[in-house]
Amino acid sequence: MSEIEALVHDVFGTVVDWRSAVIADGEALAARNGIGGVDWARFADGWRGAYAPSMNRVRTGELPWTNLDTLHRMALDRLLDEFGIAGRLDEEEKAWFNLTWHRLKPWPDSVPGLTRLKKKYIIATLSNGTVRLLTDMAKHCGLPWDTVLGSDLVQHYKPDAEMYQSAIHFLGNDDPGTVMMVAAHNNDLMHAASHGMKTAFIARPHEHGPNKTRDLKAEHDFTYVATSFEDLATQMGA
Amino acid sequence: MSEIEALVHDVFGTVVDWRSAVIADGEALAARNGIGGVDWARFADGWRGAYAPSMNRVRTGELPWTNLDTLHRMALDRLLDEFGIAGRLDEEEKAWFNLTWHRLKPWPDSVPGLTRLKKKYIIATLSNGTVRLLTDMAKHCGLPWDTVLGSDLVQHYKPDAEMYQSAIHFLGNDDPGTVMMVAAHNNDLMHAASHGMKTAFIARPHEHGPNKTRDLKAEHDFTYVATSFEDLATQMGA
Repeated sequence: MSEIEALVHDVFGTVVDWRSAVIADGEALAARNGIGGVDWARFADGWRGAYAPSMNRVRTGELPWTNLDTLHRMALDRLLDEFGIAGRLDEEEKAWFNLTWHRLKPWPDSVPGLTRLKKKYIIATLSNGTVRLLTDMAKHCGLPWDTVLGSDLVQHYKPDAEMYQSAIHFLGNDDPGTVMMVAAHNNDLMHAASHGMKTAFIARPHEHGPNKTRDLKAEHDFTYVATSFEDLATQMGA
Repeated sequence: MSEIEALVHDVFGTVVDWRSAVIADGEALAARNGIGGVDWARFADGWRGAYAPSMNRVRTGELPWTNLDTLHRMALDRLLDEFGIAGRLDEEEKAWFNLTWHRLKPWPDSVPGLTRLKKKYIIATLSNGTVRLLTDMAKHCGLPWDTVLGSDLVQHYKPDAEMYQSAIHFLGNDDPGTVMMVAAHNNDLMHAASHGMKTAFIARPHEHGPNKTRDLKAEHDFTYVATSFEDLATQMGA
């Protein structure tokens, strides 16, 4: 059996707490522009709720390749309308808010756990964000990636096969057993396993605030099941 | 004029001293296998000498896409024959020596200078090595890249346009003026400039040991001309 050499990570939800960061930026935006009465948690959930359906429009060919910044902006413009505040924000403020996804913050265990794992393994992203988004985020919050794999490299979104295959090719010299997918989402890991990759589940019960209804625990026989990146590092002897 | 946001770096020669590392690994290989009388400096120069011609066979279509590890191995096998030592090394030793290019060592100013530049700019590779080679090398010698761009991402070698365009697209949001190519080679920088990128020349007079006959100085009007990464960081206020 191949030994694990590289760990590739889902980012939104697994490494960073997108919900808290979007809420905080929404509240800052509202304060700067004298906007009251918006439930920014509901806004954040709506924005994230548009994520899978908008990527599916690309995955099914309804839209040509469209990167995540653009999909986020399409959803943002719709939500600003729905919340009745589109006219209260100028273009610069909208562009700033759209880049909230470049400024997400890690769960408390992410940086210390990844820093330990990096000493023993290659650590990289395998995310539907762009290379630039993931690089900006890493610089913003100190994520110590060795390199960044994003969806724009192959113009496909997970769970398309091309994404998992890109990690196996670029970091695993085409041996899937040397690469492990790390994610808080059962579905992502099952797709990785179907390509021969190893898998690690990290539970993130607060990803959706009080509203999380799935991925509360590992539902399959993954290579590792951990409660945090620190726990994963300990289990892997890093 | 766009402000510089990302620096992409040529690696072999510019960031790392390939010649000393290949000589050192050759000497270690010889000692382990009881091989005497080989001029490892000449061997290193011969191996590196095969670099441009072998990539040109891919660039002109004579060979289908072939990554740098494979091109290095083709040249290694030929050189081992020429030096009369092919039969003295088993496959494991040959494979180890071929990976010498994953274990190159930085010039003394590279890590401290890049560490300063990283605080202000995105720093990445833009090298004809593979993502895995460049990642292995960075881990081996502590190069602090934010991300790694290699030739296998686009299946082209510099100076093909696709390589420079990949940096502009993935790190510059398609604005070439926000991305600067850093290299010790005038030719690489002139190609980058032709795509609208900014340019920085770093002099590496010892790249070819005592044999360097070109790229001794900047021959064009580059954005920056520096004597080291520390000097470049100072000039850029980092």
